[in-house]
Amino acid sequence: MSEFATITCVTDLGTDDETVGLLHSILHELSPSSRVIDLCHHIEPNDIRAGALMLARSVPYLSPGLVLASVGELSGRPAIAVSVGEGQSILVGPDNGLLGAAVAVVGGASQAVQLTNEDVHNASPGVVHPARDIITPAIGHLAAGGSLLELGQQIEPSLLLPSLIAMPRTEDDGSISAEVIRRTRQGAAQLNIDRETLSGLGEVIILEFGGDQRVVRLQHPADVNPGQLALVDDEYGLLAIATGQQEGIVPSELLVGAEVTLREAT
Amino acid sequence: MSEFATITCVTDLGTDDETVGLLHSILHELSPSSRVIDLCHHIEPNDIRAGALMLARSVPYLSPGLVLASVGELSGRPAIAVSVGEGQSILVGPDNGLLGAAVAVVGGASQAVQLTNEDVHNASPGVVHPARDIITPAIGHLAAGGSLLELGQQIEPSLLLPSLIAMPRTEDDGSISAEVIRRTRQGAAQLNIDRETLSGLGEVIILEFGGDQRVVRLQHPADVNPGQLALVDDEYGLLAIATGQQEGIVPSELLVGAEVTLREAT
Amino acid sequence: MSEFATITCVTDLGTDDETVGLLHSILHELSPSSRVIDLCHHIEPNDIRAGALMLARSVPYLSPGLVLASVGELSGRPAIAVSVGEGQSILVGPDNGLLGAAVAVVGGASQAVQLTNEDVHNASPGVVHPARDIITPAIGHLAAGGSLLELGQQIEPSLLLPSLIAMPRTEDDGSISAEVIRRTRQGAAQLNIDRETLSGLGEVIILEFGGDQRVVRLQHPADVNPGQLALVDDEYGLLAIATGQQEGIVPSELLVGAEVTLREAT
Repeated sequence: MSEFATITCVTDLGTDDETVGLLHSILHELSPSSRVIDLCHHIEPNDIRAGALMLARSVPYLSPGLVLASVGELSGRPAIAVSVGEGQSILVGPDNGLLGAAVAVVGGASQAVQLTNEDVHNASPGVVHPARDIITPAIGHLAAGGSLLELGQQIEPSLLLPSLIAMPRTEDDGSISAEVIRRTRQGAAQLNIDRETLSGLGEVIILEFGGDQRVVRLQHPADVNPGQLALVDDEYGLLAIATGQQEGIVPSELLVGAEVTLREAT
Repeated sequence: MSEFATITCVTDLGTDDETVGLLHSILHELSPSSRVIDLCHHIEPNDIRAGALMLARSVPYLSPGLVLASVGELSGRPAIAVSVGEGQSILVGPDNGLLGAAVAVVGGASQAVQLTNEDVHNASPGVVHPARDIITPAIGHLAAGGSLLELGQQIEPSLLLPSLIAMPRTEDDGSISAEVIRRTRQGAAQLNIDRETLSGLGEVIILEFGGDQRVVRLQHPADVNPGQLALVDDEYGLLAIATGQQEGIVPSELLVGAEVTLREAT
Repeated sequence: MSEFATITCVTDLGTDDETVGLLHSILHELSPSSRVIDLCHHIEPNDIRAGALMLARSVPYLSPGLVLASVGELSGRPAIAVSVGEGQSILVGPDNGLLGAAVAVVGGASQAVQLTNEDVHNASPGVVHPARDIITPAIGHLAAGGSLLELGQQIEPSLLLPSLIAMPRTEDDGSISAEVIRRTRQGAAQLNIDRETLSGLGEVIILEFGGDQRVVRLQHPADVNPGQLALVDDEYGLLAIATGQQEGIVPSELLVGAEVTLREAT
C-alpha cells in the first residue's frame, strides 16, 4: 500500500445504476486496503461549476490522500492527475475546470500529469467510459503505490483548464455585484461573497435581482423571523439569502447563476 | 482505538450535497480504524418523530458502539451524548426527542452529557452546523478512545426531552385508537399497535378513519387477495393496513399521523 | 474469516428507509472484517429483469467473493445460494430468475443450495423479510467461514429458474428483431445486440419501432451531431440508440421492453 490510504469521490454519476458500484469494485481490486469515502455522487450531470465549488469548499475537511473526481465530459483533453500540498494529496479527474478551484484553495499544483499511458487504463468492452476506464484505474494505481509519472505525460500545471467561478465585483458606485452559486437543501441562495467583502455596506442592505428590490438585514440565521428575507452567514463562511425557518421561501428568481447587486441602504 | 469500533449514522441530511461525505471524512480523520454504517440519511428534514421511530425499531439489529444521530434542529438545547446498555453503546444527537424512544427500547440511559465542551467541537468557518461541528466531532472523540465526561456537563437522564411517540389507547367501548406511524416503500400504512394489543377484537375488524369505515380481516400479508384491504403483520411485529400485492393501494387518507379506530365486528 | 472477504450487494430496497442499513449492520455483526460494496440499491421494485441484466453486465468488474442479491419476491420458492467459478464466488438471492444471467456469464453453476436451514435464518419479530432474515444471514454465514452445504438442501443447478432475458432474432428477410433492455442516465436506449450480431447489415440501418421508421448510421457516440439520432456503441459493448450530446432526446416510444427491428438500408 502507498501513503494514499484514503480515496474521496465526487462525481455526477448518480446512484440509480451500477456505475458508482463498479468504481468501488475496481478500486477494491487494485488496492484492497484503501478506504473509499463518497463525498457526493449527485452533482447534476455536466454541472462542472457545481462540482468545482463543492470540491473547493470541502477541501478543509477532507483527509489527505487521493481525490477521484468525475463531473462532465473529457471534451477532447486527456484526463489529469494533479499533485498538491507538497505531494500530500493527488486529485484525478477530467481537465475541464473541475479541479482548478480546489487546487487553488490548497496553494496550487506542484505537479500535473496527463493520463496518457494506456497501460494503466482498463480495457473497455465498448466505448471508453472515462470514470470507469481511465480515472478510477489511475486512482487505483496510485493507491497501490504506483508513481504519478507512470500515469502519462507531465504537463505544466499552468496549462490546466481553470475553474470558471465567478468572483464578486465592486462597482464604481460602491455597490457589489454577486452571484448565486448554490441553492441549499433548506432553500437558501448562497452568494459568492463573505462578510469581509461586504464590510463597507453596513448592516442594512438593498438587494437587487431580476428587476426586484428588497431591503434586508445582515443577520445570524437563528435571528431571522419566520417568513422574513435576510442576508445570513452560512456554514462555510459565505453569505446567503435565506428566510426564517419553517416558513416563506427565497424568491424564485434566485436560481444558481442569478446576479444580485448589494447596495448600501441610505 | 476504543471499544467503540462501529459508528451507525441516522440523519435527515440527504445525499444531494456533500454534508454526509464531510461527516465521513471528519470521522475518518479522528478515528481511521472505525467502521461507519449508514443506517439512513433520507429522513424527511425535521421529521424528528420518523427518526425516533426508525432508530427505535432498528436497535435490535444494530452493532454495539456509537450512534450518530442528526434529525431536526438543536432548538436552543445543547446536543447530548447518552450512554445505554451499561456503557455498551453511546447515542449522540440533538436533545429534541430524537433519541428517547431508542434509549427506552434498550432499557434507559445510564449516563447523559451535554456537549458543552467547545474544545471538542470543530471550529466553523461560518455559522455552526450542529451535525458537522458538534455531533460528529463528539462521535470521533469517543471512537478514538476519549471519555464521555470530557464532552461536557453531565445531566440527569430524566431531564432529556422524551420522544413524542403516540401510544394506542383502548376506549371505554372496547375499541382501540391507533395512529399511522409510517408509510412503507410498498405503500402499507404501519400502525402503532401489535397483535397483542388487538387480541380482544377477533379476526374481523372494523377500521374507521377520516369518516370512512372498512371491514378487514387480520391476515398474513401473503394471504391477502390482490386489491383487497387487510390488516397484516409487518416485518417489525407491528400491524399495518395493506392491500394484496401488485394491485390496489391503501386509501389516501391513511397518511402518517392519521388516526384509525379499530373496532370489533358484530 | 473465510476466503470470501468481499460482499457485493444488488437490491431493489432503495435507501429511503433503514432496510439497507440493517443489512449492513447484520453483515458487520456476523463478519466484521468483510468489505461490503453497494453495487446498486435503486433497481425498480420487483424489476427482476433489470436486476438480472445489471448483475450480468457488472460481473466482469466485480471482486470474487459473495454477491447479496435481492430483487422481487421469493414467490413460493426457497431462496438459493449458487456457487460459480470453481467455488471462487457464491451468489445468494431469490430463485426468481435474478441470478441466472450472471451465473451464465461466468460459465454456469458448480453447486446450488436452497436456504432451507432455518438455524441460519434470523428470527423475525413479525413477518419474514427475505433480504433481512434469510439472504443476509446466509451471506454472513459464508463470510464468516461457514460452509455452503450448511445453508440447506442441495439442488440440481439446472432446476433453478432461468433469467428471462430476450435474445435478438434474425428474421427470414435478414432483418434483426431486438429489444430495448435499459435506458441510461443520459437517455440512450440500450439494445440487446452487439456489433457482431449486426455485422451483415452495413453502416446505414433502418430502425423500425412503434409504427415509426428512422434511417440511422452506426457511429461512435462522439461522432454523432447534436440532436441527431444514431446507433452507437455503448460502454458495455452493446449497441444503443442515442442522440448527439446535449440536445435532442431518444423517441419516447423506446422504453424498456420496446421491440426494434433493424433492417439493411437499400
